[in-house]
Order: sequence, then C-alpha cells, then structure tokens
Amino acid sequence: MVAFIRREVEKSGRSGVVLGMSGGVDSSVVAHLSVRALGPSRVHAILMPFRTSSEESLRHAKLEIAKLGIQHRTIEITEVAEALFRLIPGMDRKRMGNAMARLRMAILFDQSEEHHALVIGTSNRTEILLGYGTIHGDAAWGLGPIGGLYKTEVRHLARALGVDREIVEKAPTADLWVGQTDEGELGVSYEIADRVLYLMVDRGMAPEQVVALGYEAGAVERVAGLVAASEFKRRMPPVAVIER
Amino acid sequence: MVAFIRREVEKSGRSGVVLGMSGGVDSSVVAHLSVRALGPSRVHAILMPFRTSSEESLRHAKLEIAKLGIQHRTIEITEVAEALFRLIPGMDRKRMGNAMARLRMAILFDQSEEHHALVIGTSNRTEILLGYGTIHGDAAWGLGPIGGLYKTEVRHLARALGVDREIVEKAPTADLWVGQTDEGELGVSYEIADRVLYLMVDRGMAPEQVVALGYEAGAVERVAGLVAASEFKRRMPPVAVIER
Repeated sequence: MVAFIRREVEKSGRSGVVLGMSGGVDSSVVAHLSVRALGPSRVHAILMPFRTSSEESLRHAKLEIAKLGIQHRTIEITEVAEALFRLIPGMDRKRMGNAMARLRMAILFDQSEEHHALVIGTSNRTEILLGYGTIHGDAAWGLGPIGGLYKTEVRHLARALGVDREIVEKAPTADLWVGQTDEGELGVSYEIADRVLYLMVDRGMAPEQVVALGYEAGAVERVAGLVAASEFKRRMPPVAVIER
Repeated sequence: MVAFIRREVEKSGRSGVVLGMSGGVDSSVVAHLSVRALGPSRVHAILMPFRTSSEESLRHAKLEIAKLGIQHRTIEITEVAEALFRLIPGMDRKRMGNAMARLRMAILFDQSEEHHALVIGTSNRTEILLGYGTIHGDAAWGLGPIGGLYKTEVRHLARALGVDREIVEKAPTADLWVGQTDEGELGVSYEIADRVLYLMVDRGMAPEQVVALGYEAGAVERVAGLVAASEFKRRMPPVAVIER
C-alpha cells in the first residue's frame, strides 16, 4: 500500500496527497500509510467538521495529526451546508448527509488544486462492496490505498501502525447525524459482513452456500442485497453507443 | 439514444430523469431525447444560475422547457457558492468554476432523490475525450445519452430535433465566468477538434498521420495532449491490490 501511494503520486506528476481526516480508523490508517510513502511534508490533512460533528471525532483526528507531524487545515462546513439546506427545503437527514459528503468532496478536490496534490481515498473494501458511501462524495478520490482491505483488516492494520486505541475501538460512524453508526445503518456487524463478503466475493460462494456454513440467512441476504444494489457505484456509468 | 434512455431508466427501477439545463445545445438535446423516451412528466429540469450567469442562458433554457412542456425548478446557487468562496479565500476563477460545477452536481443528485429519478448527463464525446468537464461536477451522471456524439454531431442533431436556432448557433460556453467560451479555453475549434479526434480515436491514426493529412501540427498536438492528460477522468481510480 505504501509502494502504491508512492507510485501513483509519482505517475500523476503531483507533489503529494490531500486527505480528509474524520478521526475514524480508515482516515487515520491512510494518514499513517501516506506519511510512510511520502514523508510528512507532502501529506495535507483537511478537517471538515459540521455543527453536529462530535468533538471526539475532531480530537481523534488531531491526535494522529500531531503524532505524524503533518500539516492540517480546518474548514468548518456548517455555514455553507446550512445555506444549501435553506436552498432546498425539506431534505431528510439522509439527503442532508449526502449533500454534506459532496460538499466535503468539493472542498477536498479544491484543496488538491491548491497543493498540486491528489485526493487520497479512505474507502475500504467493505464499504466499496456494500456501496456504503456517497457517490461523488466520500466515495470520490484519485487513489484508494485501503480499497482492498476489509474493515476488520483495517482495524488490525491500525493497531500495527500505532493508531490510538480509542480510535480503533470506537463504533465506526459517518458522523453525519448524532447517533449514526455504520453498523446500525447497514443492519449487520462488520465482523459478519466481512466474513460473508469474503466467502461470496473472494471465494465465489452463492448465498445459500454461505448460509449452509452457519451464517444467519437474514444477514447473508442483507449483504448480498447491498452488493447487488450498489453495483452502479463500482463502474463507469453507461454511455449510449453510436454506430458509425 | 431514445431507446438507451428508456432502457437505462427501466433497469434502474427509477421513475424518470433529472436534468441540469444550462440553455446550451447539449442539455437542450438531452431534454428533447428524454421527452421522446419518457414523456414530459418524467423529465425534471433544474436550472441553477449563478449571479454572473448570462440572462440569455436562462432564457434559452426556458424556451426549450416551454416547448417540451416539462416541469422545471430554478435553484439559484449564488448564496451557497459565495459562502463556499468565503470559506476558502484565494480561489482563482478556475477553482471557483470547478467548485460551482460540483455544487450543481450535489443539487442534481439531491433532486434525483426527491424525484426518485436518475441524473441524466449532458457530456458529449468531444468533452469526454478532451476531459473538458469537472470530474465529480458536470462530468458526473447516471447515464450518458449523448456521450457517443461529437459536439458538431450534437449540433446537427439539435437542428433535426427543432432546438432553437439561437441555441444551436451561439458560441458554446460553460458560463462559469463572463466571457468564457469552450473554444477559447480548449485552444482549438470544435470543427477541428472533432475531425482530429475522429481520426485519432475512431480511426486509430497517430498524430503524425493526422498532420500529414493537412491538419495544423499545433492543433493536433493540443488535442492529443488533452486526451492523454484526461485519461484518469475516463476510468475508475486505482485501488491498491491486496494479495490474499
């Protein structure tokens, strides 16, 4: 993953990476990998809290930033996000969450121009396969160093890299509204989701075969349903073919 | 293209399309094709002017909307865009233009949730091949009905569909700042760019062969350079492969 970051940045002709840090385990791991690949001066962390973002998230992000000695900038999105919510009245919290993820993407891509850098992604394999991320929001980036690691693997790697224990052990959340947790939204724990995904995607098993191994049918169905419903997020959108 | 729109909307299980209309020839053509595919009630046009957008653009968009009898909503982005510009001082006009394109994307994708619809794209083949569009901005959509047509072909189609002459004949512009024109930014006319792209991409000729046919070497070089530099916009970003 370190070699990948180094190679992709070099190939692009850009001078480093811009990274949105949330205080969660994924962005913490990507920060560590980026510093190992490029050194601290070429890694630009951006913190983009909203009014309801937890104080703990911010504290955790700053903990790893200090440990790694990287530059950071805090760009509070509250005012812009609320201007957007006023513009389109009646958005529910899911639409507001997607809009905030896209606003953060716009800021990160802008900052990547300011630093002549690439936006480095923090999506892991579990999120990508389940489609748990906002298309053109947090799922938008120029290179994905941990896109091949399941969430539970990211946690193991985080421990090995020395990411703070509190960060590794807290409940994962997109922190888009108070009380949101990934596992609450997904309807299945990462421990189970990762095993089911591994069996279905890496080992090519049918859902029935996974159930036959002792996994709960409801959970397997849920995972298989999320994978199928998010297929469009993993490929380029269709273009009408013109015969010449 | 009409069959493509109908098929993709049906496959997605969504009920129609959301379309950002700028008053230009591309979005006008897509509006006409969408109405032919789905009927007027399933096509939702969104107009997203900024303070500096030309009055003419808005007037042209409304002309085609009235002709087609489709619903539309105007969402003026000025206040949100200016809040964003205040948040990140020192953006040049290119970065401001990209930020506005991404803000419009966030609004269109939000509106696609409100209408349980797909975001229909207006990128044409010339723009896609030259990378003339903002990634995760106007280049972000769920289906691309005119992505196989060169710009000059879109103009021919527009005439055949009955798009207003003024729209077909005006200088194409992203209208992100006053005086901006596509051809001024690209440094080559669409007439030349399309011929050069056809020869290089569809016919597989090397730049030297195109020059040998009588095209200006500077223009050929410019087109070839833009195609190469925008390759990353036409594929999914790289993910580090994890061997298991």
